[in-house]
Amino acid sequence: MTMGTNTDFAVSVTELLQTLSTFGAEQDGGVTRLLYSKPWSEAQTYLSEKMKEAGLEVRCDKVGNLFGRLPGRKTETGVILTGSHIDTVRSGGIYDGAYGIAAALTAVRHLKDTYGPPRRPLEVVSFCEEEGSRFPLAYWGSGSITGAYAAEDADGIRDAQGVTLREAMEAAGFGRPDQPDSKRTDLSAFVEAHIEQGVMLERTGDKIGIVETIAGQRRYVVTLTGETNHAGTTPMPMRKDAMSGAAEMIMMLERAALKAGDPLVATVGRLRPVPNIPNVIAGLVTFTVDIRHTSETLLTGFTDAVLCTFQSIAKRRGLTIDIRTALQARPTPMDTVLTGRLERICTDRNVPYRRMMSGAGHDGQMFVPICSTAMLFVPSRDGVSHSPDEYTAPEDLAVGVSVLMEMLYELAYEEQMP
Amino acid sequence: MTMGTNTDFAVSVTELLQTLSTFGAEQDGGVTRLLYSKPWSEAQTYLSEKMKEAGLEVRCDKVGNLFGRLPGRKTETGVILTGSHIDTVRSGGIYDGAYGIAAALTAVRHLKDTYGPPRRPLEVVSFCEEEGSRFPLAYWGSGSITGAYAAEDADGIRDAQGVTLREAMEAAGFGRPDQPDSKRTDLSAFVEAHIEQGVMLERTGDKIGIVETIAGQRRYVVTLTGETNHAGTTPMPMRKDAMSGAAEMIMMLERAALKAGDPLVATVGRLRPVPNIPNVIAGLVTFTVDIRHTSETLLTGFTDAVLCTFQSIAKRRGLTIDIRTALQARPTPMDTVLTGRLERICTDRNVPYRRMMSGAGHDGQMFVPICSTAMLFVPSRDGVSHSPDEYTAPEDLAVGVSVLMEMLYELAYEEQMP
Repeated sequence: MTMGTNTDFAVSVTELLQTLSTFGAEQDGGVTRLLYSKPWSEAQTYLSEKMKEAGLEVRCDKVGNLFGRLPGRKTETGVILTGSHIDTVRSGGIYDGAYGIAAALTAVRHLKDTYGPPRRPLEVVSFCEEEGSRFPLAYWGSGSITGAYAAEDADGIRDAQGVTLREAMEAAGFGRPDQPDSKRTDLSAFVEAHIEQGVMLERTGDKIGIVETIAGQRRYVVTLTGETNHAGTTPMPMRKDAMSGAAEMIMMLERAALKAGDPLVATVGRLRPVPNIPNVIAGLVTFTVDIRHTSETLLTGFTDAVLCTFQSIAKRRGLTIDIRTALQARPTPMDTVLTGRLERICTDRNVPYRRMMSGAGHDGQMFVPICSTAMLFVPSRDGVSHSPDEYTAPEDLAVGVSVLMEMLYELAYEEQMP
Repeated sequence: MTMGTNTDFAVSVTELLQTLSTFGAEQDGGVTRLLYSKPWSEAQTYLSEKMKEAGLEVRCDKVGNLFGRLPGRKTETGVILTGSHIDTVRSGGIYDGAYGIAAALTAVRHLKDTYGPPRRPLEVVSFCEEEGSRFPLAYWGSGSITGAYAAEDADGIRDAQGVTLREAMEAAGFGRPDQPDSKRTDLSAFVEAHIEQGVMLERTGDKIGIVETIAGQRRYVVTLTGETNHAGTTPMPMRKDAMSGAAEMIMMLERAALKAGDPLVATVGRLRPVPNIPNVIAGLVTFTVDIRHTSETLLTGFTDAVLCTFQSIAKRRGLTIDIRTALQARPTPMDTVLTGRLERICTDRNVPYRRMMSGAGHDGQMFVPICSTAMLFVPSRDGVSHSPDEYTAPEDLAVGVSVLMEMLYELAYEEQMP
């Protein structure tokens, strides 16, 4: 096949990413597009315009996933889906999620302009939510498509302001009866391009990471209750200090994770003391725990041991402890046939690549139960993501687009499905 | 002298405290009256009404301290001042500060009704601020009276919303040229009644605590800067996690404080991670440190050692650390003559009492440099304060009023000043 020049792709993708970064731009240079927020809606509206410009049939489903469809010539109905998520963490980077959408739109537009309609329907998707930054759940967009989430799940879940997921969804104009249901049964393949968010590709000089497995993940919300008291008049031995209890647990978790070694990672990213005042002993502390590993067995073993130690630390300190599971995702292997195709494409085009695991969770893992799924990574400078410093060079973005495009060509245009 | 019955005092003080507790009442049963807030203003207005009812001359100074004056018969001008602070911590109790004002007003009103005008001016004061809960400074009210603070100090200091102390003060109607300056040079004595906020009196069964020394205090704001990064893709050894760094420092501080033993106490009551998201490694954490001891030497030695260890922990973890001093108060001995008088009053009236130190800071410590100062405590149930569970039995409140009243009688009505 003839390919567009990487320069064309670099310009197109960079332009899309720069424009998207204006929706939810923060003063610190970061981007915040929380699910169903105003900047989120504006970004989806902008993308639907670009999809129309590209000659795609645009629609939104009930939860707010945005699709741009290029209908197939043949009666073959198995849809080839590609894209990523439009939401971000608070003050995140401009590439996480957005790149997968920009790369998909650029690739599909070029395929259409070059080869016309494909044999099989080709769809670009902008998932409404993946990060779990506003509501205590992740993959709301892709999970609603694959059936992991049902509409009712929107009722019980609340954000930090107490707004339910349903209220936020309806306020943004979704959840209406006239909108198409999110669940899909017509997908034959999903391919997602994403930034690595790690240092592996940068260190090895490879340009493409072909994901073999997405690490399993456990996320918990731990609440410690002790005694709020005066910082000056309460002797140290008489205290029930929830802050010190949390500090001991965080230290223990870090030590255990370092001891377990790669690829296990464990993080306490959020912590809220109450009343959070300098001269008052914190009687209540809530914090999150995020633990990941590619082996379900090792992940479960480590997690059980940690939570058990949390219990004993709380008991020894006279604190009551409540542990809620916020997220539980098993390690997910990608489709070996598609992974092999990506490898061949890179070899044929002399693109330096490596097979690797993904420490980050991705929408891709949600599709494995319902269709063939593959993921490819492009390098992240210094491995930084979820930060305004997130960066990938335009030429690296372009390599990702060209590999994604060839993959989509094989899946949607060739006689035989892989 | 003839005294009012303790029942009268219990009724009067309890009524005042109950009414004050309605200004800034929280759903959890606590009270929040931050400096210059609406409930704060309403509470001061209510108190000024009660002062007028008692026949006192009412005035506010430039920073919002409220005074009720009972003029002296004689030309003797040395003012006898008594009272405490009207502000509270967030969701604090109804006795901390408020009791000292209610006891003073009840005692002075009874003295006036029984003995008429005193030889020396007698003033009840409601200090505008003591807790340091809204702005990163404490004793703004008493410190402005004693000259520890100057008007200019209101310019640089900001609350969590970025509002300067001056802006808040002027919004509440203070800081006007026509208002009397806060600094006083006409005081001869200050006597403050307060709840103990500790378990000592409850444990020993004593009804009055006579303060010999107020513990010295150091308060710091520590800022750790590491690297914000993805919780799933950043290997443990490559992290610069400000949260783990803070946790290690909090654990170290607790261990060191337990080792140092009574009366040293050390507390981290406030901690703020950024961005404070479950799947993002915190690149920035700010927390406060509060350290207290009755010995300046031991306090300084302990504090220097702790901050030095903080530096080395930060260095080892590749974190940058910034340590700002928010409060530095030396241990303060009360006036031995006044302390002796309080002791004699308790002995004469067969009130069980004990000489003790105060682990909590109080407005009293600010007056030591400019006039004779004394403090007396009443019991706190379970030693709890800065909490909705704060409680002192009405009969115990009344004993405090009667001892305070006799002390004020001796200071303001008797021929000879002590």
